[in-house]
Amino acid sequence: MIVAGLSGANGLDLRLTQLLNTELIRVESKSFPDGETYIRFHGSVKDETLVILQSLYPNQDRKLFELLLGVDTAKDLGCKEVIVVTPYLAYSRQDRRFLDGEPISIKTVLKLLSSVGADYLITVDVHKVESLNYFYGRALNLDPTPLFAGVLRQVVREAVIIAPDQGALQKASELSQLIPNSEYVVFRKYRDRITGKVSHEAVDVDVVGKDVIIIDDIVSTGTTVANIASYVKNKGASKTYVVCSHALFVGDALNKVISSGVSKIYALNTVVVPEGVEVVDVTPLISEAIKSLIRS
Amino acid sequence: MIVAGLSGANGLDLRLTQLLNTELIRVESKSFPDGETYIRFHGSVKDETLVILQSLYPNQDRKLFELLLGVDTAKDLGCKEVIVVTPYLAYSRQDRRFLDGEPISIKTVLKLLSSVGADYLITVDVHKVESLNYFYGRALNLDPTPLFAGVLRQVVREAVIIAPDQGALQKASELSQLIPNSEYVVFRKYRDRITGKVSHEAVDVDVVGKDVIIIDDIVSTGTTVANIASYVKNKGASKTYVVCSHALFVGDALNKVISSGVSKIYALNTVVVPEGVEVVDVTPLISEAIKSLIRS
Repeated sequence: MIVAGLSGANGLDLRLTQLLNTELIRVESKSFPDGETYIRFHGSVKDETLVILQSLYPNQDRKLFELLLGVDTAKDLGCKEVIVVTPYLAYSRQDRRFLDGEPISIKTVLKLLSSVGADYLITVDVHKVESLNYFYGRALNLDPTPLFAGVLRQVVREAVIIAPDQGALQKASELSQLIPNSEYVVFRKYRDRITGKVSHEAVDVDVVGKDVIIIDDIVSTGTTVANIASYVKNKGASKTYVVCSHALFVGDALNKVISSGVSKIYALNTVVVPEGVEVVDVTPLISEAIKSLIRS
Repeated sequence: MIVAGLSGANGLDLRLTQLLNTELIRVESKSFPDGETYIRFHGSVKDETLVILQSLYPNQDRKLFELLLGVDTAKDLGCKEVIVVTPYLAYSRQDRRFLDGEPISIKTVLKLLSSVGADYLITVDVHKVESLNYFYGRALNLDPTPLFAGVLRQVVREAVIIAPDQGALQKASELSQLIPNSEYVVFRKYRDRITGKVSHEAVDVDVVGKDVIIIDDIVSTGTTVANIASYVKNKGASKTYVVCSHALFVGDALNKVISSGVSKIYALNTVVVPEGVEVVDVTPLISEAIKSLIRS
């Protein structure tokens, strides 16, 4: 088995190589003057099981095409099987046709990966795990909640864990089971019919003097998290923590979240996280998943 | 039959609709705040033959993924058959493994288009026509040389047509047959072994007092064309014209070409051309190709 990291590997390729005690193959990656993406494997992949690492953020489409090039080329060069690792799988939120005429983008992405010959797919905390059925081969979704619990247990006392919406409920419930003296609650999203402004509110939550943990899979613009942090601060919460798998933090998201009264943000290194965010390393989880794949 | 233009349609969708006397379906195209590409068909494609137009420059990977989303979605929505029109097909120059470990990028691109269900592919002056064999369905490459000849016949007298390299030889020969009192010659590329500088030179070409036409499929950085234009100017050429199908003109390419002594540049509207370049409309050629596809 060999490991190859593309331009979005974010250092996980090196860590993974150490944890798996295997070899890293260098992949050159650049853009031509006109913007075309170029890669080149510096070393043989023939008859190998290749683990190819690529996070799909930022520049989702460029990163995706680079990955498709990588898989297709590896198979062309005689690679035995390809295990694609996308720590962050872009387009996972467009998982159904919300409106007529829309794409199911995650379906297209997984069809493309399948069609170039990806045999296995490993990803972390995908938006909806059912989406992975669109992949033709075997796909694994890794749950980082125990990693977060390990860190948070050192930090919080009596905690209220908040799921910003129904989609995060399962995550909040699981985290609560792993943190003593904690309870969880799910928030509801309200859209003001006149102003269109979105706000978040929970019924019957007592946060006075307690720590609050807001957990979600993706923080993008930060608006949801900032709204909830302001809300619980007004309600008398002690400290507020944000826990997310994929810290996209678009534009001024970090400032928005910090200034809403959040004490600390924890995120995985599935994407490059902004300075000030505490990184929880996801590589051990990926390493274990690859070992279990190889054994099975 | 209906026509849909994506974000890279460059107005060809409207012109094509008029020439084919058919309907245009509006496709919404945007990027989400985090950079994900989004499209939506505003209108039904069910049971239709859909012509979907997308040029793949600039931002090749974004344009390609948008096209893949479009084709996949159209097929999902019950579209009968999809005719993909890429007036400019990106990645056509990476058509073989020049070095070990490289991708054959055009193969990957055409495999992806095939895998989402594109039935036909129409493109204009692709770098090497053999590349189209990587597409699973029927593919047509349109030759714009007669269009250029029609324009140039009004402009030049005694002309020397220059192919910058062997790849453009066929094009130069064909153009020469369509322009009276013209001859053609192929240039050779020299790389200085010490400085690495590339220069172009022809053996036995008399351009004194003659018009020169430099013809190529793609002008990217403009260096090749500018080198040749300077060369023939020094040799006593009268006026120099540049004719290219795809005017990518990266960075300061236009200035480079103009300041090398080129009188006029002619290019197709397969991509958005910079101001100052004379546009030759390729839509009639595409329209005729679609009509012949439908008939066959």
